[in-house]
Amino acid sequence: MSYARQMLDTFSRTVNVDPGVLAAATDAMSDCAQACTADNAADLGEHNLAEMVRCIRLCLDCTDVCNAAQAVTSRLVDYDPAVLRPLLESCVAICRSCGDECERHAKMHAHCRVCAEACRRCEQACRALLDALR
Amino acid sequence: MSYARQMLDTFSRTVNVDPGVLAAATDAMSDCAQACTADNAADLGEHNLAEMVRCIRLCLDCTDVCNAAQAVTSRLVDYDPAVLRPLLESCVAICRSCGDECERHAKMHAHCRVCAEACRRCEQACRALLDALR
Amino acid sequence: MSYARQMLDTFSRTVNVDPGVLAAATDAMSDCAQACTADNAADLGEHNLAEMVRCIRLCLDCTDVCNAAQAVTSRLVDYDPAVLRPLLESCVAICRSCGDECERHAKMHAHCRVCAEACRRCEQACRALLDALR
Amino acid sequence: MSYARQMLDTFSRTVNVDPGVLAAATDAMSDCAQACTADNAADLGEHNLAEMVRCIRLCLDCTDVCNAAQAVTSRLVDYDPAVLRPLLESCVAICRSCGDECERHAKMHAHCRVCAEACRRCEQACRALLDALR
Repeated sequence: MSYARQMLDTFSRTVNVDPGVLAAATDAMSDCAQACTADNAADLGEHNLAEMVRCIRLCLDCTDVCNAAQAVTSRLVDYDPAVLRPLLESCVAICRSCGDECERHAKMHAHCRVCAEACRRCEQACRALLDALR
Repeated sequence: MSYARQMLDTFSRTVNVDPGVLAAATDAMSDCAQACTADNAADLGEHNLAEMVRCIRLCLDCTDVCNAAQAVTSRLVDYDPAVLRPLLESCVAICRSCGDECERHAKMHAHCRVCAEACRRCEQACRALLDALR
Repeated sequence: MSYARQMLDTFSRTVNVDPGVLAAATDAMSDCAQACTADNAADLGEHNLAEMVRCIRLCLDCTDVCNAAQAVTSRLVDYDPAVLRPLLESCVAICRSCGDECERHAKMHAHCRVCAEACRRCEQACRALLDALR
Repeated sequence: MSYARQMLDTFSRTVNVDPGVLAAATDAMSDCAQACTADNAADLGEHNLAEMVRCIRLCLDCTDVCNAAQAVTSRLVDYDPAVLRPLLESCVAICRSCGDECERHAKMHAHCRVCAEACRRCEQACRALLDALR
């Protein structure tokens, strides 16, 4: 069981969301932030560097948005839809764009394949959390 | 002139936004993130700690959202409205809530007065950027 | 296998360190940052709040140092001992202090017990990486 | 007066350091983090991209270390030399390397000249804080 899930099980909150959905989202955001950090570092060492610029830019944004979404979601006690919903929507959008771009390079670069998977999983976990918060 | 403004003046982008509006937003986000970090640290040392919990929580979220918005806005080359608009909207919402809460404590705690000002300025700068991006 | 390990296996670097040691460190830093974020949020809801202030402060610092160490370690291509060694030493020191403080509250608060474990694991993983970099 | 200085003047701490030195450090770290984020984004758009890779990598690390050092320094109440000193030493080292690399590109790219200045100022402010903490 991840630390995120263990923490959620010990901590009372007024947000009425399944702890499995919440922990899956924070874990996926954290993994995606890490994968994007490693992926853009790897991209910077590739021979086709000029073709990787868009991937690098998207990975950098994806790390920043995932990290913020992860922190805000991890400390969720009350639920302010005006803050959390657009933050999760932004996270869905950047994970989607970044996942699409990484997928374009997945055959040539294994690190982009791994990163695309992390982005897809994070996009889905954020969508599931948005649905659960409805 | 801030570093943010100096950087913007050297760097070509397809985003058709007034560089003064863009630099004001990134500077305000960075200042607000810093003020909220210092404010929650100061709150933790106050005698009326139990009354400061909501302020501490909002400051923590505000720092994280401002930092992400600042980074994404600073590296803005192309404009993806699906990522940037909700991120700025989330930033407006947390700056508003955090500014309101800090203002409630402003008479008792000077650090909350300073933080409320930083939140207000960031809220306005993000709204101005959202308008400029329309 | 974690994303960190999968990424490391795809990405060439001049740093001559066992990829298992490196991936264990970045995973432990990421987990510890997450656990500390959730733990201080949980502390803020406890009845004995005044006794939790030191724990909250240490968790906040621990999250920030772990996040920086995780990012720098994840993108490690060349090794600059003047940057990485003190960063890892700072991470060891904050994980140790934060783990000690969380352990003091572990019997009363299950979230502190979980966080103490994440801090211990991160402290050990950073020490192992420091040894491997010698 | 910066928000950092205003905050410091409202907030009691046991750390016996001149508030001007402390505020200068947190402001310089925050400015340097911002400048490095904007600089690596600008580097990614340059024609001599392959020559800018080292600059991009150093800027990314510099942002992460400066952000952590800024947060830990901003919430400084007690002083734990085992955490803060190596964190500031890591910050001095990355600001120095990043400033040197940016300076190499300063004639060709104005954004690197601005970033080099931010790195130099941050390196000096961190050294001044380290001296003041002795």
